[in-house]
Amino acid sequence: MISITLPDGSVKQYEQDVSPYDVARDISEGLARNVISAQYNDKTVEISSKLEEDGNLVLFTWNNPEGKKAFWHSSSHILAQALEELYPGVKLTIGPAIDNGFYYDVDFGDHSVSDKDFKTIEDKMLAIAREKHDFKMRSVSKADALSFYEDQNNQYKVELIENLEDGDITFCDHSTFTDLCRGGHIPNTGIVKAVKILSIAGAYWRGDENNPQLTRVYGISFPKQKDLKEYLELLEEAKKRDHRKLGKQLELFTFSQKVGQGLPLWLPKGTALRNRLESFLKHAQQKAGYEMVITPHIGQKELYITSGHYAKYGEDSFQPIHTPKEDEEFLLKPMNCPHHCEIYNSRPWSYKELPKRFAEFGTVYRYEQSGELHGLTRVRGFTQDDAHIFCTSDQLDAEFKNVIDLVLYVFGSLGFENFSTQVSVRDPENPEKYIGDAANWDKAEKAILNAASDKGLDYVIETGEAAFYGPKLDFMVKDALGRQWQLGTIQVDYNLPERFDLTYKGSDNELHRPVMIHRAPFGSMERFVAILLEHTAGNFPLWLTPEQVIILTISEKYEKYAQKVLNLLENAEIRGLIDDRNETMGKKIRDAEMRKIPYMIVVGENEEKDNKISVRQHGGENLGTINVNDFTNLVNAEISKTLKEFK
Amino acid sequence: MISITLPDGSVKQYEQDVSPYDVARDISEGLARNVISAQYNDKTVEISSKLEEDGNLVLFTWNNPEGKKAFWHSSSHILAQALEELYPGVKLTIGPAIDNGFYYDVDFGDHSVSDKDFKTIEDKMLAIAREKHDFKMRSVSKADALSFYEDQNNQYKVELIENLEDGDITFCDHSTFTDLCRGGHIPNTGIVKAVKILSIAGAYWRGDENNPQLTRVYGISFPKQKDLKEYLELLEEAKKRDHRKLGKQLELFTFSQKVGQGLPLWLPKGTALRNRLESFLKHAQQKAGYEMVITPHIGQKELYITSGHYAKYGEDSFQPIHTPKEDEEFLLKPMNCPHHCEIYNSRPWSYKELPKRFAEFGTVYRYEQSGELHGLTRVRGFTQDDAHIFCTSDQLDAEFKNVIDLVLYVFGSLGFENFSTQVSVRDPENPEKYIGDAANWDKAEKAILNAASDKGLDYVIETGEAAFYGPKLDFMVKDALGRQWQLGTIQVDYNLPERFDLTYKGSDNELHRPVMIHRAPFGSMERFVAILLEHTAGNFPLWLTPEQVIILTISEKYEKYAQKVLNLLENAEIRGLIDDRNETMGKKIRDAEMRKIPYMIVVGENEEKDNKISVRQHGGENLGTINVNDFTNLVNAEISKTLKEFK
Repeated sequence: MISITLPDGSVKQYEQDVSPYDVARDISEGLARNVISAQYNDKTVEISSKLEEDGNLVLFTWNNPEGKKAFWHSSSHILAQALEELYPGVKLTIGPAIDNGFYYDVDFGDHSVSDKDFKTIEDKMLAIAREKHDFKMRSVSKADALSFYEDQNNQYKVELIENLEDGDITFCDHSTFTDLCRGGHIPNTGIVKAVKILSIAGAYWRGDENNPQLTRVYGISFPKQKDLKEYLELLEEAKKRDHRKLGKQLELFTFSQKVGQGLPLWLPKGTALRNRLESFLKHAQQKAGYEMVITPHIGQKELYITSGHYAKYGEDSFQPIHTPKEDEEFLLKPMNCPHHCEIYNSRPWSYKELPKRFAEFGTVYRYEQSGELHGLTRVRGFTQDDAHIFCTSDQLDAEFKNVIDLVLYVFGSLGFENFSTQVSVRDPENPEKYIGDAANWDKAEKAILNAASDKGLDYVIETGEAAFYGPKLDFMVKDALGRQWQLGTIQVDYNLPERFDLTYKGSDNELHRPVMIHRAPFGSMERFVAILLEHTAGNFPLWLTPEQVIILTISEKYEKYAQKVLNLLENAEIRGLIDDRNETMGKKIRDAEMRKIPYMIVVGENEEKDNKISVRQHGGENLGTINVNDFTNLVNAEISKTLKEFK
Repeated sequence: MISITLPDGSVKQYEQDVSPYDVARDISEGLARNVISAQYNDKTVEISSKLEEDGNLVLFTWNNPEGKKAFWHSSSHILAQALEELYPGVKLTIGPAIDNGFYYDVDFGDHSVSDKDFKTIEDKMLAIAREKHDFKMRSVSKADALSFYEDQNNQYKVELIENLEDGDITFCDHSTFTDLCRGGHIPNTGIVKAVKILSIAGAYWRGDENNPQLTRVYGISFPKQKDLKEYLELLEEAKKRDHRKLGKQLELFTFSQKVGQGLPLWLPKGTALRNRLESFLKHAQQKAGYEMVITPHIGQKELYITSGHYAKYGEDSFQPIHTPKEDEEFLLKPMNCPHHCEIYNSRPWSYKELPKRFAEFGTVYRYEQSGELHGLTRVRGFTQDDAHIFCTSDQLDAEFKNVIDLVLYVFGSLGFENFSTQVSVRDPENPEKYIGDAANWDKAEKAILNAASDKGLDYVIETGEAAFYGPKLDFMVKDALGRQWQLGTIQVDYNLPERFDLTYKGSDNELHRPVMIHRAPFGSMERFVAILLEHTAGNFPLWLTPEQVIILTISEKYEKYAQKVLNLLENAEIRGLIDDRNETMGKKIRDAEMRKIPYMIVVGENEEKDNKISVRQHGGENLGTINVNDFTNLVNAEISKTLKEFK
């Protein structure tokens, strides 16, 4: 008999060689139907594996990330079999599961594959799937494994096997197909009910451009046809919402090859939008007791040696800036904290003056490989809505609550209703990994957990995920497509106060070390605007959107009246513009829709005669003919629904 | 007979060898009394010089910069004589006139000089001056000149003479003193009525630290005792107004050795002040049709090769930033224009869309030698209130007028009532020095002059002072001490549109080159704030000042009432704070005066009882006991005196 511990802590006794599937069936028939993958003692196993010793068992269904991984890993075996059957003589290399689906890198030899062949591959895969072949793992000797692939002339697999230890090598069989594999499969191919080949791309063997080029076939699969349909719709919608596409369409930002990759140029409409976001946060921050500072974008190398950033960013980053003076070196700032520490250090402080909260929209520069760059979400220069709070450890609790309030205020005002949080704390088994004394860590971790509970946050605790310098609280938002994005962060820091020798005079007249909190509700302006674009599909909250109203003239006769209406709107601080082009009303409306302008005002003979305006909402709803004053009230009411005063 | 042309164009006939002094006397006795220096055919001459050929004569009095130069140059001869007599055996080197006074670099040998000796030197100089010695120039052969100084063992003068051509060497005699000299003196020492030795400093011979160290003796002299008195008062006042001192006292900015010299850190109060200045200009710019953009602080080296800045700033500047990728180089941006050109180039333009006006508070970095750095006026990183206007050449006229309006609005709102302007145009004799065709230059120069006249500017035209890429208009303000500062600038640019291949489609459907205007009313935020500090002595205009009101409690009993008053003020958007320290009212008032807060509100028993406040103005005036509403009206009325809406 062996003891098996389940995630809820319950321990059950089973005969040796019981399988995860047996345990699932023992728990419930429903679970047994749905279980597709398992972990035993933190190692991935098959659900048919024989469990030989005591241990912890976790069972996964399609709804777990681990379940999806097994599903897609297994699907790549089916893809491989399909390709071998369709393209005799192809050489398989590696085929892992990824975040959304799986791929297989294949040397197609003389065959050529294009998107016209995707349907054929999908049909072949589905045919194999329907035959319900079991996935069966077996050990092979290194010699047998090598000879298997040498017979196929597959130098790639041979190379992989040569790097493995004899005794550690396993093959997976299903149907007539065999692959070198570490395991982690669903029980049989029949569970795969829907398959889509998404794309093909070139990929070098082992990612090295000196090696032969292979073809990477991307696919995704699901246990239900309906899931695939939903996924493809999501993909279509995500493409429409791609912030790079919308940013261009709405004239928010651009890039220039001459200025350099990953260095956004904010166009007038994007700048106005970003400035509105910044003003919004500045206003709230002022109420929350923050003080703005401005610091340069460079600092002497010595500053970053003191802060430790030089050691961290060093060689992979922008290199030091030399000057005509020998031995003088500056660095582009990768973070604002060292500068803020120096501002703190520019005078002595008393405990009565703490907390000090220094905020800056600080632009920082970090080098990213050009292949890693992506629109506004991965850039080389970005502006953090940064602030550093210098406080006593007794003030941590209250400060954390204040910051959480601010973050929630930001999310609420921008329509992010779905978010989760994560508290990262020490690994209690490795206390030597962390700077700062244990009592302070206890205090800080308690302060975070206490504040998070107090504010009703739904949080998970990640043990061992704290930075070496302090625990933290991260906010993840879900966008309209259900995609998760890491946004705001709040971090405690015991390290920089040490490194910069920050002090304050306590009530005991002695010098003490303050605690530092780093925080950024948006994270970065670039990334936040990108996520907001994808979340809203460019339909920004009314208070934020570049143009709130567009006035469409029925003919040039009404230009003057349109101008009069625009003046009234501008006096009421509504942002508008006039489309008086000589185009049809249908065309003007379509263009206004493309520009995502929330309200269209049509003015013609009747409107001018009655001194009214006809209002149409983005998306098509007709709000009828009303006077300008009623319209401005309507706009203001709409704005005050989302944009409230802080506190 | 020779013909002498005077600055007003009149031509007079004189016998050969007439002197400038003779000509002055011929014009008027008054002029003859005041003339102290002259130029003939663009060369400095003595007023006793014999004019031998036809030419242009300019006569100078103390009121001309050239007159002052001759005065101070002559005074340095007197200083040299005084030093030789007081310190036998000293070796003289060079002793020029400077912007304010003169100096002489002296090798004092075994003598030592300190500020205790200044009075003795001044007395000796005045004694010499009173003897009314004429300054007399004479030619000497190189051999005689060398032997004169070899006899004195003066290796410095010997070195100077060795580098001169025989036949070109002149000495100047007065009293018993002789000096190697090129000329340009006042008639005699008697005109010097007041003398002050200001300071001494170390200086290396020829500025090279490998050479012997000399002592530089700084002095100034005047034709009237009263002038000296006024100058010394000005100096005293300037010291009090030093923006570095006030910036510290008012907690506006600081520097950090670790961050680096010349890289200001803006403290909360300075940041708030700067943000108010920026908002003020943003608001006016929006009305004037500008659009804000944001661009990164670096750009690829290639960008600056295209713009020509790399060639210009090259080796004397911050060096290129390398990255982990070979051959990739970035530069800190020394100017914002290349980025704005790339924004312009991000899409095609029609003539109907011009002018485009892109504005940015853009922080730029330029390397300065550490010895050149000075507070906020000479820094290594500064933020320009930059904008670039892209227009057709037909629009230059209107755009220049608009920019002048904006600059005048800025000066008016900030209390700079005294300013002058300078129009820099081509040198018509060197057309090859300039880029862009002559017709366009004509158009641009006319547009500037026309706009300047139209706006009633008092301008001087400086021929040949235009940049190679276009003519410009500079604004110089006089501060409260009468010192002149170069502030705003408006420049036409034909160069960057060529280099960046900027185009627009004209009404003829062909591509044309736009003209670019660079402009910055403040110049830079750092420099402007420094000048404003020195101009106002820290008493900023009420709308701008960090704290408008301070509430002083008579005792702790009135803290609550003080808070109530503060809330009322804050609701009326007045910036205030409370001083509820346990200090005497006298101390609180003195501290508020030091902090330059415009209004002090005293609250005690009577005020609370009557629901009123006692108001005292910075500088001492008592405004009596009034209610809060009347006070806010008073503040708003005061603000609207200087701060008006643009246009």
